[in-house]
Amino acid sequence: MSEHADSMRTIWYEAEADNVCIIDQTRLPHVLEVITLTTLSDACFAITDMQVRGAPLIGITAAFGVYLSLKENPDSLSSACQQLAATRPTAINLQWALSQIQERLQPLASTDRAAAALDIARRLLSEDADACGAIGDHGLPILSALLQEKRARQHSGEPVVLNILTHCNAGWLATGAWGTALAPIYKAHLAGLPVHVWVDETRPRNQGASLTAWELGRSGVPHTLVTDNTGGHLMQHGMVDICIVGSDRTTRHGDVCNKIGTYLKALAANDNGVPFYVALPASTIDFDVADGVREIPIETRSADEVNFVHGLNEAGHVQRVRVSPPETNACNYGFDVTPARLVTGLITELGVYSASEDGLNDIAAVLKRIQG
Amino acid sequence: MSEHADSMRTIWYEAEADNVCIIDQTRLPHVLEVITLTTLSDACFAITDMQVRGAPLIGITAAFGVYLSLKENPDSLSSACQQLAATRPTAINLQWALSQIQERLQPLASTDRAAAALDIARRLLSEDADACGAIGDHGLPILSALLQEKRARQHSGEPVVLNILTHCNAGWLATGAWGTALAPIYKAHLAGLPVHVWVDETRPRNQGASLTAWELGRSGVPHTLVTDNTGGHLMQHGMVDICIVGSDRTTRHGDVCNKIGTYLKALAANDNGVPFYVALPASTIDFDVADGVREIPIETRSADEVNFVHGLNEAGHVQRVRVSPPETNACNYGFDVTPARLVTGLITELGVYSASEDGLNDIAAVLKRIQG
Repeated sequence: MSEHADSMRTIWYEAEADNVCIIDQTRLPHVLEVITLTTLSDACFAITDMQVRGAPLIGITAAFGVYLSLKENPDSLSSACQQLAATRPTAINLQWALSQIQERLQPLASTDRAAAALDIARRLLSEDADACGAIGDHGLPILSALLQEKRARQHSGEPVVLNILTHCNAGWLATGAWGTALAPIYKAHLAGLPVHVWVDETRPRNQGASLTAWELGRSGVPHTLVTDNTGGHLMQHGMVDICIVGSDRTTRHGDVCNKIGTYLKALAANDNGVPFYVALPASTIDFDVADGVREIPIETRSADEVNFVHGLNEAGHVQRVRVSPPETNACNYGFDVTPARLVTGLITELGVYSASEDGLNDIAAVLKRIQG
Repeated sequence: MSEHADSMRTIWYEAEADNVCIIDQTRLPHVLEVITLTTLSDACFAITDMQVRGAPLIGITAAFGVYLSLKENPDSLSSACQQLAATRPTAINLQWALSQIQERLQPLASTDRAAAALDIARRLLSEDADACGAIGDHGLPILSALLQEKRARQHSGEPVVLNILTHCNAGWLATGAWGTALAPIYKAHLAGLPVHVWVDETRPRNQGASLTAWELGRSGVPHTLVTDNTGGHLMQHGMVDICIVGSDRTTRHGDVCNKIGTYLKALAANDNGVPFYVALPASTIDFDVADGVREIPIETRSADEVNFVHGLNEAGHVQRVRVSPPETNACNYGFDVTPARLVTGLITELGVYSASEDGLNDIAAVLKRIQG
């Protein structure tokens, strides 16, 4: 499987040249461009501008950002962490990665910190890739079982396809490899299971249309793009067998903070008896938060993301166009919270758990045992 | 109020020049262009291409289309009706207007039909304008009552604003005047009530961003544009006091077929105890249909509407840009059905009724009395 994982990387370190490289996700799907991050401000800009996005990837990029800062100025640990922490307030991995790094590097001599930071960043990257591979392995049996049930219900002898709806991009572009929500889908596709993915376009930034559609197309996974408005209709008409989404932050009660619009799909799944799973590495769990709706502050982003849409014009250039009248006031919340009651299960690298206080306690117990 | 109604017209007949004029809604909000329909195929194109859209307006335009056809060829009644009926299969008003017209014109001599068709078209237009004005009058007390309740709950003495969420465009651009969902909002604004409208952008064609935002801005009604993904989050956080949407077709059990995505907002309203009203002229009720989800065929439109977005580029030209990778397969359902159980009430020109078999029976009884 490692050759597949290797073909699914969006950030990597080139040891010989001492380069941190990323795919610039703001230019996909129209241009596949690799850029090199050489300074702390490159890393901050990459996160703020969403050249990299997705909860796990943001944490990894921040770790490399600390390395780049320390390489230039060995005494910049706390200022680098402060600058990086401010880039995306909702991403719990970011805060988690930065506090891990500070804790580990603070005791070291300034001159040793850059090398240690690089070690941590590379370890975070490879651990995340492994975690996502394991999420895929744990999610695969859920998909196989649903496919079997669907085949058992189908009497016409026609071939059965498992229809999966996903929101935003929780693929390998958002992680070290494989992705979270897309990992079980890639594993199923590689195992020869007939899957088809409904891809929510995911306004305002269209990560579904531009990133998920691109990823799935590249791997030959059958998929259809739909507007964010469409999922309810599809579920009412039996055209969705399962929803799988990612998570930017999961609370100790099982509430899931993810891309804005996730909650609406969870409501539709619940109303139509469609299983709604969330795939996440345990690093995105925030055990300090219980009630996601009340406690998680939601990032608001620029109104321009709503008023304008980026795409390829007929001359082949990426351009933005304004969809609203001039001076229209717009509001841009980046995330919403899906209450645990709407979540069928959490697919993690440790296994599948219920989205509940009990389920999260079980995860905490396993983490405690592993971490020792 | 008639001066307000006159400033809110998107189709009109100029008697002296014998011209049927429309605002071309495909060019809004960037260009306000009035075009003249001179032939049947102009009218068909206007409906198919959505230069005019919205259930009531489609019916009215079709009636003028019959007139234009008969003016050219007095024997074209049934072929004209057939062509017009095929333009938008979901719009019940279209079929309703055409069958009314055929029934009325068939007995007449060919040479009398054009003049009679024009009479019918003008009557449909003025009746729809009156009906929408009445919808506004019946909806206004709902808004006033919610505002009073909100003021009673508010103890800080801060000014209270009533927040209304709407989806797509059910404003005067979609009707003879006033609009359906927007009619109560315009009436409230004119009455001095402090209202603020959350405008869903309404992908794929962005009728919210391009038409509703334009309409409300023109009338000075405070509003904020949001993506279709946002409403659930707003409702979870008490930022929506009421939803009001239009309807393309309402069944005799009270199910509402409206722009794709309406169902998702109704689910969120239900989950958060937010009243969800549907505003409609009685002409959009289809008494032949009971179960909207099972019985109403949903129009699918071109995948291009999903893969491309139209807007104004930085040079000031309207341009389309592609948001997905080349060759991406997309699916474009135009409508969904909101089950009656999620609808708080139906605001019609006859009054406010429950979205239920009983409510629809009451409406039928009133219609029978009026017509009979």
